[in-house]
Formats: sequence, structure tokens, C-alpha cells
Amino acid sequence: MAVITLLTDFGLEDAYVGIVKGAILSVNPAATIVDITHSIPPGDVMQAAYYLETSCGYFPHDAVHVVVVDPGVGSGRGIVALKTNGQRFLAPDNGVLSALLSKGTGEQAVMVENTRYFLAPLSRTFHGRDIFAPVAAHLSKGMDMSVLGPAVATENLVSFRFPEAVFANDRCIEGAVISVDRFGNLITNIRQKDLMKLCIQNQPSELKVQIRGRTVEGLSDTYKSVPSGKPIAVIGSTDRLEISVNGGHAADVFNATSGEAVRAKV
Amino acid sequence: MAVITLLTDFGLEDAYVGIVKGAILSVNPAATIVDITHSIPPGDVMQAAYYLETSCGYFPHDAVHVVVVDPGVGSGRGIVALKTNGQRFLAPDNGVLSALLSKGTGEQAVMVENTRYFLAPLSRTFHGRDIFAPVAAHLSKGMDMSVLGPAVATENLVSFRFPEAVFANDRCIEGAVISVDRFGNLITNIRQKDLMKLCIQNQPSELKVQIRGRTVEGLSDTYKSVPSGKPIAVIGSTDRLEISVNGGHAADVFNATSGEAVRAKV
Amino acid sequence: MAVITLLTDFGLEDAYVGIVKGAILSVNPAATIVDITHSIPPGDVMQAAYYLETSCGYFPHDAVHVVVVDPGVGSGRGIVALKTNGQRFLAPDNGVLSALLSKGTGEQAVMVENTRYFLAPLSRTFHGRDIFAPVAAHLSKGMDMSVLGPAVATENLVSFRFPEAVFANDRCIEGAVISVDRFGNLITNIRQKDLMKLCIQNQPSELKVQIRGRTVEGLSDTYKSVPSGKPIAVIGSTDRLEISVNGGHAADVFNATSGEAVRAKV
Repeated sequence: MAVITLLTDFGLEDAYVGIVKGAILSVNPAATIVDITHSIPPGDVMQAAYYLETSCGYFPHDAVHVVVVDPGVGSGRGIVALKTNGQRFLAPDNGVLSALLSKGTGEQAVMVENTRYFLAPLSRTFHGRDIFAPVAAHLSKGMDMSVLGPAVATENLVSFRFPEAVFANDRCIEGAVISVDRFGNLITNIRQKDLMKLCIQNQPSELKVQIRGRTVEGLSDTYKSVPSGKPIAVIGSTDRLEISVNGGHAADVFNATSGEAVRAKV
Repeated sequence: MAVITLLTDFGLEDAYVGIVKGAILSVNPAATIVDITHSIPPGDVMQAAYYLETSCGYFPHDAVHVVVVDPGVGSGRGIVALKTNGQRFLAPDNGVLSALLSKGTGEQAVMVENTRYFLAPLSRTFHGRDIFAPVAAHLSKGMDMSVLGPAVATENLVSFRFPEAVFANDRCIEGAVISVDRFGNLITNIRQKDLMKLCIQNQPSELKVQIRGRTVEGLSDTYKSVPSGKPIAVIGSTDRLEISVNGGHAADVFNATSGEAVRAKV
Repeated sequence: MAVITLLTDFGLEDAYVGIVKGAILSVNPAATIVDITHSIPPGDVMQAAYYLETSCGYFPHDAVHVVVVDPGVGSGRGIVALKTNGQRFLAPDNGVLSALLSKGTGEQAVMVENTRYFLAPLSRTFHGRDIFAPVAAHLSKGMDMSVLGPAVATENLVSFRFPEAVFANDRCIEGAVISVDRFGNLITNIRQKDLMKLCIQNQPSELKVQIRGRTVEGLSDTYKSVPSGKPIAVIGSTDRLEISVNGGHAADVFNATSGEAVRAKV
């Protein structure tokens, strides 16, 4: 009952996701395949990295996570298999694993180069089908990562830093919106633990969250803490500050999207 | 091979659905998870109730149906586990189970309160992940509902009545559009059995269906009963009257959507 | 671990796909169901045929492929079960299997008429649920096709020819765009093997691809062969010529869609 997750920018309009699943099941018919999402904007590696980080911990420890957000497909970019915290990840070496590197236990990585586990002939444009699918399926059957290619030190993998919120002073954190969900919730990079520092000498009710020239007062427990149509600041499900509107769509109400500056003050 | 179905307003753009599936598989790796749909408009409890009613009967009897259309998440609303006709349902106590209540056999319900089966820490905004997923997974493994919390009489659950079609007189039923599907079919709340009453003394060919000032004549057998581009009235797959256009999109042709008044006359 | 694939025009907004899966699992709880896509434009049989042809070969040999793009549902059109190359296909007899006919080994076909394997009562508008789902589930359990109905010679099935590229002369192939994917890639019906004939006396770098009055020079190895924003011609994952834009959306850049004329010259 090995789980393989898929996180891609393929969308669901074409047959690409289905083909990848066929190629997986041709190697491991017993795999349980789960879509994390296929709606990553084409080539948006940072968005994929955020979704991967906030998803992977909820899957069984022996899951294989496959990320195919791969604008460099067919160029010289490598493919990496990473093991950390018991889970395995297969992704282009383009930084999409950045949030996972040097954090877990038992971390090891190899470059995926052994063509024995690839489909042949190998296309230049669809490595999701020809490399990621069969390799993930073999891993899900218990194949050791080491047969895939040479070990690589994780500090040599492509990596980037996520934009992090910073303390402007001990009463003010400056951050940004990093994701907008279907409900219009504005998810920021301001973390609960940092908000708690602001609130050591102050009550959560004294918090002021500023975005696009407007201020949301206080930290609420739930979306329903305010009248319908009113904005609130809440700690969301990834332990980050979110700006929401009860029964509404905060991104529309504030005319804000990813990248928008957000300030939390007391 | 326990089946768990998911019916939510999460959409497929974000990672929420994938995360819920991970949380299910972490408890029951053998679960077969099926999406009913995740495209319910945010918070549209009545639409979800309609989809649930028209779907659940086609699943295996031991399925666990999970509905997370939950605008009250994190507020005081309860969560209910319902058993009826052998199937189990897990949903917010917000009326989404209304169509199922007091109809089946062996009906019993409990309030879901036992935190032992929840993820910890429990977020305030994502009970799909933290409560619905692990509880459904435990139920799918055969756990008895009674351990989840206190029994509740189903007449004490939140419930609403669907708008039902009514006989204005013995030759006329007044109803409404209750759903529009991808093909533009206008699905009404006028049921086949009531249409048959109209037609006891009259032929189906004498039926007149009125919507937005226009009249569709006769009851057709199939979409192809009329020339391409012409409207028809048919009995759809849920035994309700539907207004369709052969090869076209009735909702566009009639400029109609959910809530529009529909009259069936002889 | 029998695989059943689904290729429909149902979309994911409604509950139709979920209901079909429920009806499959009610017959074969052990089936592994894979979505190829449900985003076929309503009734677009040719698009479905293209996706089926380019997908089915990547699935396990014992897969059952179900196609429900069926504008004639409820009319007199037949339903066909086809076996070829070890795989089984279930589809309306409307030409959607054209690309598979008379090509594989062990080809046999029957008309699906035995109501014993249908749901009862049988609706007139949702054969995906009432016929395709249970019949596919029975096939996936190993039921022999011959019990479904009378054998039919595949030359008597509805069939159409895909628009094929042609050699205007020995230095020029005239074809067309046949599909546009999420990334905006323009997939043509000009095949690699024909391009290779053009290039016997010429280098791939001398190839000129013309579309909407513009010319793309040379055949590239990967999307990254040119600067960001520049167009390229590549051999795509189905061994057909594709016109792409590095980091961009060729369909928008060229203002082209399916049906657009494309010429490859040396």
C-alpha cells in the first residue's frame, strides 16, 4: 500500500497526469497515487515548494513524493532523489526541495542518472512520464535510492531562501502574502511563534495587521468571530498569520495577492 | 477495501484536498478514497446536500461519506456522524445531511467530540485535515461510531427543507431549477412521479414546460429527440425534470440558473 | 489490482465522475480507478480519441479503458467493447476508438447489449453510471467480453480518419495543430518520422516551421534551447512536431488554436 504523491503544474485539462499515473501503475500496480495538486502555475517552483512543505508531513512516513514543476525539462538540469525524515522525494534539481533541506533526520540524496529505470525511448519534453513515474514506482516498491545514481551532498543542490518575515523592531513584524487560497484567504509568512513574541507584553486583541493601507484589529479565533463581511486576522492551518473575511473573499476585498506587504504591530 | 468519499468546497487549486487524503491514509493506508466533487461554491451547504443525496446510493454500502462544506469551521457548530441504510456520513451539523435524515433504516447519530481521534494540535481553520480525515479513516477501519461522542436524536440535528415543487392545481406543478450541470442542463425539483400524475389523463406529448416566458412542448426520451439546437424536456438521471438543448447549453439558451421558476402543465 | 481508466467530458464541477466511480466500486471494490481527463469539451469525440490514443499505451496491459464522450446517449447509438493488444476499451460506437482499430493484435469487438450487467432502472441520460461503470467493473474482474453481446467486425464500427499531415512535395509537409495543452504548446499532426524524411538531405537546423505567417527556424532539442520568450519547434512527447515558446504560451503568442495550418519545410 505504498503511497506516491504527485505535485505538478500539468493542470487537469490535458491527459498528462493520467499518463503519469499509467506509467507508475505499469511498474507498481499496487501503488496508491494521491494528487496534492496539479494547479501550480506553469513553472512556479516557489509555489510548489510551499505546497510541498505544508503537505508532506501529513502523509505516511513511507510515502514517495513526486514534484514535476520543471521548466528546465530536457535541459542540463539534474533530477534528485532525497530522503529525509523517512520520506522520499523525487524532483528536478531546481530548488523545489529547498524548504526540506538540512532540516530532517537521516537526510541523504542522489542524482537520478541510471537510465535502467527510465522509459525508453526517452522524450525530451515529458520526463514526468519517462523518468519521474517509473523511478517513483520502483522506489515505492522498496528499491534503494542508491542504485539511481551518485550520492550528492545536499548543500550542493539548487536551493533558494523563501522570503521570511522580519522584526523591524520589537513591536513590529514586516512580512508578505505568500499564497492566496480558493476562499480568498491571504496567507502570510508571519509565523505564530513570532506573533507570540509580539504578544508577550501585549494582548492578542491589541494586535494590528496592516495591508494595503488598511488595518485589521486583533487576532481572532475563527472566521466567525466577526460579523459577516468583516475582515479578521487568524492563525491559519500552517501556523501562519492569515487575513480573511467572514463569508467573503479577502483577496478581492483588499485587492491583494501574493507578494503584498503585510505588517503586524502592537 | 473500505471506500471513503470526499465532498468539499476546497477546489483543486490548493493543496487542501491532497492534505486531507494524506491524513486519511496515515490512519488507514488501505482506504480507497473517491472524490465526489470539490467544486461546491464556498459555503454552499444546499448544493452539497443535493450532490450528496444523488451520489451516495451508488457507492458500496460500507462506504464512509465525508462532507466538508463548513462555513462555521472553528465556531461552536458541532460535527455529526450519521449511520443510515448501512452507510456512514461525517459532516458539520449545518444541515448538509438534511436530505438523508428520517428516511433510511437503522438510523443513528452521534456528536463527534472525542479528541482522541483528532490530530493534535488542532487548528481552528482546517478541521477537514484535523478532525474529518482521521475520524473517517478510523470509521473505515471498522471503529464503532459510539466511541466518537454522545448519541443525538436526528430530529435535534440542524436541518432544512429543500424547496419542493408543488401542485398549483391538478394540471400544473410549480417548481424551480435546483442545479445546472457542466452541459448546461437545467435540473429542476419537479419529480418524475409527480409528472406522471399530470399525465394520467394526458399524454406526455401534451406536457408544456414553461421557463422564463418560453414553453418547451412534450416530454422527450433523449437529448437527440429533437433537431440540434432545439430545447427539450427530459427525465434526467435523478428522476427529476430537466430542460436541455440538443448539442447546446440550456442555461445559456434560456439565460437561467439555479432558483429560476419552472412550471409543468397539461 | 485491475486498473480502470476514465476519459469523459463530464468535467469536475458536478458529481457525475464521483457517481461513476461509486458504481464501479459497488461491483469491483478492488478496482484501481485512474482519471485520464474529464475536461474533454462536451461532445468532442475527436479530442477524446486523440487523448485515448496517446495515453492507453502507458497503462498496464490488463487495463480497462472507459470513454464516455457520448453526445448520442439515449439515442440509437450502440456501445462497443473492444479488445486489442491485450487492453480492453468500452466506448460509445461513435468513432472515439478510430485510432485504435485495425492496428493491434488479437483485435475483437462486441456490441454491449446484455442488460444483465446494467443498472436497473436504466436512465436515458446517464449511461456512464448505468452501463459503462458496471460493465467496466465486471470486465476488470475478469469477465469475458463475449457475454456482453454479439461479436461485431471492427470494420463495421463507426470510424473516422484523423486529419493527417501530407507531403506537398519532397521538401514540404502540410499539417495542422491538433491540440493545445495547458502550457500553450501547439501540438501538430506532423510526425517525427516524416520530419526525418525531410531532413535526410538537410540538417534539422535548416527546418522552417510556418504558422500564421510567421516562421520558426530549426528543430530544437528542448524548450530551453532558445532565450526566454522565443519560439521553438520541438519533437514532443507523442513524437509529433510541437511549436512552443520558452517560458511562454505559444497559443497566445501565435494567436493559434486547434485546426490552424502548419507547414514544415527545408
